[in-house]
Formats: sequence, C-alpha cells, structure tokens
Amino acid sequence: MNELTIDLNPKDKMPLYEQIYQYIKESIISGRIAYREKLPSTRLLAKHLEVSRSTVELAYGQLLSEGYIESEPYRGFFAAQVEGLYHLVNEKVSHREKEAVKKERYRFDFTPNGVDLKSFPYNAWRKLSKDILMDDKVELFRLGNPQGETGFREAVCKYLYQARGVNCSPEQVIVGAGSDYLLMLLCAVLGREHVVAVENPSYKQAYRLFVSQSYQVLPIEMDGYGMKVSALRDTEADVAYVTPSHQYPTGIVMPMKRRMELLKWADEKEGRYIIEDDYDSEFRYKGKPIPALQGCDRGGRVIYLGTFSKSIAPAIRMSYMVLPVELTDVYLDKCGFISSTVSVVDQLIVQRFVEDGYYERHLNKTRSLYKGRHDLLIKGLAPLSGVCRISGEHAGVHLLLTFNGEVTEDELIKKAKKAGIRVYGLSDYIIGEKKEEPTVLLGYANLSEKEIKDAAEILCSVWRS
Amino acid sequence: MNELTIDLNPKDKMPLYEQIYQYIKESIISGRIAYREKLPSTRLLAKHLEVSRSTVELAYGQLLSEGYIESEPYRGFFAAQVEGLYHLVNEKVSHREKEAVKKERYRFDFTPNGVDLKSFPYNAWRKLSKDILMDDKVELFRLGNPQGETGFREAVCKYLYQARGVNCSPEQVIVGAGSDYLLMLLCAVLGREHVVAVENPSYKQAYRLFVSQSYQVLPIEMDGYGMKVSALRDTEADVAYVTPSHQYPTGIVMPMKRRMELLKWADEKEGRYIIEDDYDSEFRYKGKPIPALQGCDRGGRVIYLGTFSKSIAPAIRMSYMVLPVELTDVYLDKCGFISSTVSVVDQLIVQRFVEDGYYERHLNKTRSLYKGRHDLLIKGLAPLSGVCRISGEHAGVHLLLTFNGEVTEDELIKKAKKAGIRVYGLSDYIIGEKKEEPTVLLGYANLSEKEIKDAAEILCSVWRS
Repeated sequence: MNELTIDLNPKDKMPLYEQIYQYIKESIISGRIAYREKLPSTRLLAKHLEVSRSTVELAYGQLLSEGYIESEPYRGFFAAQVEGLYHLVNEKVSHREKEAVKKERYRFDFTPNGVDLKSFPYNAWRKLSKDILMDDKVELFRLGNPQGETGFREAVCKYLYQARGVNCSPEQVIVGAGSDYLLMLLCAVLGREHVVAVENPSYKQAYRLFVSQSYQVLPIEMDGYGMKVSALRDTEADVAYVTPSHQYPTGIVMPMKRRMELLKWADEKEGRYIIEDDYDSEFRYKGKPIPALQGCDRGGRVIYLGTFSKSIAPAIRMSYMVLPVELTDVYLDKCGFISSTVSVVDQLIVQRFVEDGYYERHLNKTRSLYKGRHDLLIKGLAPLSGVCRISGEHAGVHLLLTFNGEVTEDELIKKAKKAGIRVYGLSDYIIGEKKEEPTVLLGYANLSEKEIKDAAEILCSVWRS
Repeated sequence: MNELTIDLNPKDKMPLYEQIYQYIKESIISGRIAYREKLPSTRLLAKHLEVSRSTVELAYGQLLSEGYIESEPYRGFFAAQVEGLYHLVNEKVSHREKEAVKKERYRFDFTPNGVDLKSFPYNAWRKLSKDILMDDKVELFRLGNPQGETGFREAVCKYLYQARGVNCSPEQVIVGAGSDYLLMLLCAVLGREHVVAVENPSYKQAYRLFVSQSYQVLPIEMDGYGMKVSALRDTEADVAYVTPSHQYPTGIVMPMKRRMELLKWADEKEGRYIIEDDYDSEFRYKGKPIPALQGCDRGGRVIYLGTFSKSIAPAIRMSYMVLPVELTDVYLDKCGFISSTVSVVDQLIVQRFVEDGYYERHLNKTRSLYKGRHDLLIKGLAPLSGVCRISGEHAGVHLLLTFNGEVTEDELIKKAKKAGIRVYGLSDYIIGEKKEEPTVLLGYANLSEKEIKDAAEILCSVWRS
C-alpha cells in the first residue's frame, strides 16, 4: 500500500497527526488494513496528504508505541497483530443519577458529623498538588513505605507533640486511609483473643467495626467523668476504646484523675490496652487543652488514633495511629508487609500543608468559625434554660440538650421535625437498653450563623410549648 | 493603643498585608499586645504606616478569621484570648535520610514485581488532576460513598466487561485502597469460620494476609493447569484463592477445563467461594485472552479482584472487588458502614483517565513496551536452551527458567549475583517443603532493552559453565 486517503480537517480541534493516528488505528482494528500489510513510508504519505513529514512521523510513532504497527529496519512499517490489544469503547458512561434516595427534607439539619467545607483552603490545596506533581519524580509513583513515608511520619510526630502532647518517634506511627481502616489493621495486630470495651453511649462506627472483626464488644457505663473504670473492672474486657478529649457523643472531657485510673487499669495486667481516639481534639473553646492520654502513659499501654479527615476535609482519607513501642514490633512482624493505603503524592501534599503553616491557619480559622456558631447557638437556646440544660459544649462541633420533665426524646425530635429542623436523639448512640434522660444532639459545624439564629428561635418556640 | 510601629519592607517577597498580619499575630502570642488591648483603627494604622487602608483591612480580616483579634461593633478591634489557638513551630522537618538500609548492589535486577514508571503518563495525570481540582466543588471534599462513587463503579464495570468479560453491576463493585485492604474487608464480609486454600507456590502477600486475619490457610499442590481440584477436594478448605489468568509465580494460564472443575467444586456445597485475583491480566503476549473465571460463574461463587496499581502505577492506591450478588447483601449489612479508603478526587481522576481513552492508550503502550523486552529476553536466553526450559512467558511481566540437571537453585542465584545480576528463586514462593526443580524467576518490566540484552548475555555465560 502506498497511499492512504485520509480526509483531514485542519479546522478540527483534533490535531492533524492525531487524525492520521485515529484513521490508521481504526483501519487496522477493523481489518481494512490487514495484518502484515505494509504502510506507506512517512515521506510518501506526507506528500500525498500534503502535510509535513514530522506530522506523519508523530502519528506513526504513536501507533508504534501502542503496538498497532511494527517497524522493520530498512523495510518500513507494517500493520501488527491486534488481537491482544485493548479497544475500549470510549463512549462516556452515562451518569444516570440513581433516583436520589428519597431524603426527608429539612430546612435546618443539626448533624453532629458536619464539617464546614466552604472554609476548605481550595487554593492552597490546588497549589500544593500542582507543585508536587510538577516534580515529575518517578519516586512519587512508586509504592511507598507500608507504614507511610518517613518525612510525613516525622511531620505527624512533630505536630502531635506540639498540639497534643503525644510522645512518639516516627517508627511508632502508621499512616492509613481513614480511622476505620486503621482500626481493622490494629485488630490484626492485636489478634482475635481480646474482649473490647466501649463507652456507652458510644461512637457507633467504632463499635460496629469491632463487631465486624468478630470481637466480643462490651458497652461500659459512664458517669460525668467518662467511662467508669470500676464498671470496666467488673468485665473481662482487656482492650478499652475511649474518646477522652471529647467523648462522642456526650462531649465529656475526661479529667486527669479518671485518666490516671484508666492507665492504672491497663498497667495492672499484661496484654491490656487503651485505644485513645482523638478524633476531634482540634476544636476546643475554653481554656487550655488537656494533653492526650498517650502523653501520660508510662507503661506503653495506649494506642493513639488521630485523623486529618475531620480537621482538613472528610475526603482527605488520611489518619494515623501511634503504637506503643512493644506493639510496633508485633505490627512489623505480623502486618508490616501490608501495603500502604495512602498514596505517596497525597502524603506529600498533607506534609507540605502542615510544614508550610497552612494547617495551623486552617485550624485556627475553622476553630474561630465554629466558636462563633457555638456561641450563637448557646445564646439562641437561652430561652430554654427553664426546661433543659446544655452539656458537652466545651469542645467539638456539637452540644447536648437534656430535658427534665415529662417530654420524651421522640416527642422532641418530632416537634422539631414538624418545624423543618432535624435534631438527633442520644438514644441512637446507646448500646442496649435506653435509660438516659431525654437528650438531643445539636451539631453546628454545617450551619451558617444566620441559620443557627433562625433555627434556635424556632426550636425555643416549639420546645417550650 | 493607637500606633503600631511595624518595620515594613516593600522589597520583601512577603506582601505588606502579610507582614502586618505576622507582626500583630506574634505580638499577641508573645503577650506584647495583651488580652483585651485595643488595636489602632484601620484608618489610623494605614496613615501611620503609610500604606493603603485596604492593606490594613486585609491583615485585620485575616487576624479576625483566625481568632487572634475580635471586633466589637462601634468600638473597634481587640486582642483575643489566644490560649486555645494553635501555634505550630513552622521550622521544616529535617529530612535526614535514615542510613539507607545497606542494599546489596546489583548491576541488573530482574525483580518480578517491577513496573516501568518511566512510561507513566505524567502529563495526562497532571492535566486531569488540575481539571478536577479546578471544579472547586464542595462535593469533591465530602466523604464519598463507602463502596466507591457510583460513576466510578460504572466505569469499572464497563471496563471489566469489555476487557475481561466480567459480568457485574455497579452495586456489586467495591473500591478500595489496594488489594491488601480489599482482602481484609472481604475477610470481614466472609467471617472467620472459613478455611482458605492457596496455590503452592503462591503469591505470598495474599497468603500472609489470610494468616494475619487468623485463618487456617492450606497450600494446595499444582500441576501444569493450575491448582489441582482433586487435591483441593481432599481438604476442608471452603475458600480457594487463585490467580487463573497468570498464576503467580509460575505463570500458568488456567485452561477452561480446570476452570470448570473449580467452579463445580464451589457449586457443590453452600458457602464455598473462589477468590479470583486478576492482578496482572492486562499484559498478555499471545493470542486472545481467556475471559475471567467470574464471567463463567453461574452460581454466584466467584469474588473477583482487580487493581489499577499494577496497570497504572503502584502509587495509585486503587483496587476493586466484585462480589456475587448474594455477598453484596452481606457486605452492606456487616461492613457497609466502613468508610471508603479512596478519596473522591482520586476516583474522579481515574474515572476520567479510563473514560477519556488515556487508560487504553497507556495499556497498549506498556504492553508493547513489555512485549519488546519479553521478546528480547527470550532471544537473549536462547543459548541456554540445552540446560533449561522457559515457562510462564505468555503473560505478565516475568518468566521462569527451570534447570534440568545437577545445579541447585542456590548455585544459580549465587552465580548470577557474582556477575552483578539479581534473579529470584522459585523456592521463595513455596509454602512448606521445597521439592520443585531448580527454577529462577526473571522479571523484565523494570529493565531497558539494552540492559536486558547485556544481562542475558552474562547469564548465559555464567549458567552454561
């Protein structure tokens, strides 16, 4: 074959070389150009099509690199065997939105799991992503260290020491794609021969995770200081999962005395561990923070969990776990081969985000934002002071209202719903029998100040009647 | 306070408003400006510093948003309580490289796990990342669907149907950060009451993963067609983990007959499953591919695993698992609450990569590249035809050389090492007693054609003597 008549269109936004490439590729796939058939030389085809020779060379180069044609020295180009090649139909997947699950419509939603995404530093994030991908380093696309990149783990250690009083070296840190994953990994490290205690009411996500990993999970009663260590002692549990800096959902900040009792419990018997989930320690509104339990642990009993998903954005699938030195060896031995779930690129972006000061700014900004909403909500709820009391309001992004008197939780929720407001009952967080006083959770991270003001006014009017 | 004398430097690359912001921030943190102290008005400070008023307003705005100052209507700006604020020391983490673990130096490394990273389409990747982050959509940074985004799962289904003959709907697909993670998740779905059979020799990563999840794992003998179903039947195993399209490490492609026997085994008893790991099905060099086992499964017994980590780049932590419909319900019930380990942004990048045709091009390009290396290696090893035979060469990125005669595997490896070449013994992949003939693995994905030519020449000379 010496000529290929291709109907080139110089006005098409597809470049000429690509038009030639596409035409020949399709001819070979369809069999119009048969296997082993010789293609015209680049010189001849360029002349025939009245394009520059380099245009044809570019097209042939691409066909060659993708295996559609083969070159033979001194003989020219030939159509290749295309049986094994991929021809994916490129038609776009139709993004038929599934019938949006019939969501109940609320005017205001006080979800306790909200994060203000409008304050996400999009520009900084884009800039860092771009900078890092610009590097073009092959290293970026290798499979990284199973535990997480060393530089990133160093940055995490440094941050944890300064912000949370956590004492650790990078060797103790494991980076993973979310806290759920890290808990699964931790279960493999600890082995199945444990009984897990959780706070009651509790963070159901963790509770369900331990159940899914086939553990016996025991809910432990709480008082105003957190998990009752005396109640814990009465069980066979040897692993206690706690949220001492801001208990979820009650908002209790565990005081020093209770922390010491808990550490003492763990020290009393070989193989006991405390899992400290510091999921939203970033947001406190009153006084100095109590440092992490991990910082007071002398016996190597505390496993510390933290996350960037809450403090940067939920879509940033990046959490970290700090193991006691002793468990680090067990991890390396039993699970050290498990590949990292976080890409090197993402780790470098977050590392730069922390090191270049963006994280500090972002934390202070969102804290200030949430504090404004927090103050406004408390002010707006003041008219209810006769019928309920506020608790859990010193940290996090939600507070609790506990009602004294004859009203039930269900009635409270229904009344709010009728007025277009979604609030959350504490009962949903209780494992087993529900015996708490009627209590609702109000999260404020997702609502604007205007919305909080309006919603609080409505709540006051429906709940006081 | 009516004046703040800040030594502004207009030549500094830090903008003026930022210099003002930094000065006041540090003054407040250090206590030089005390809590509740009033700041000069923006008008006065602008006049005093001889800058525009908007410059000062920008600085105050930032201080306000980060909580360093507070504004009071009609009264002005005051230093805020900074006890709870973050002040992270921004000094860069020193990237002291740990003593690079003393790696044995080889001139050529025939690792069977290599991927050619030079052919990674950096430009396309950067462009897609940029496009997607440009969208600025708050949606991108929400926590996505635990199973993976619907659009992405649709794209995966479509690709799997076209390229691998896998029949599934998006509801059956679960996206996760790597195959190790998906296997962990699968273990939670299946529960602990199973006995797992693996091929022997085997992909040790999967073997170790099942062990880490506390399963009894039984190695099953193979013949030239893959796992012996008769041997499998003699055990109590009810889950079989296999790599039928290219057994790792022997490279055996399981023929249709054996596949049918395996499916029959699974169908015979309730609760039996086959895990089909199609880890490198993308690279075949001869004839048409045999479609995935999953495509022939009528009884809903096959769990299909695939990954973009091998076909795009190891750092792309993105794999997928296709569950039988029946198990999909179990997954939703037991593990549907577990958050996704892959960010929405990354899923959208890969989705566009597939839909816009980049993936097809990349696959054909790397396949062509690997085929070139594959052909060259086989040609280069021809002089050894008297002392060994080649197998496993029809797919994947490695082949095996089995030696007949008196030489041991160790001797082969040592001779190569002496000549600066790293090859891999089959024994490392065998669980239990080693009784195979002396066999070495040669992976060629990571070596250039020149390197392959040179290394093959050396190997021929040292192994023939």
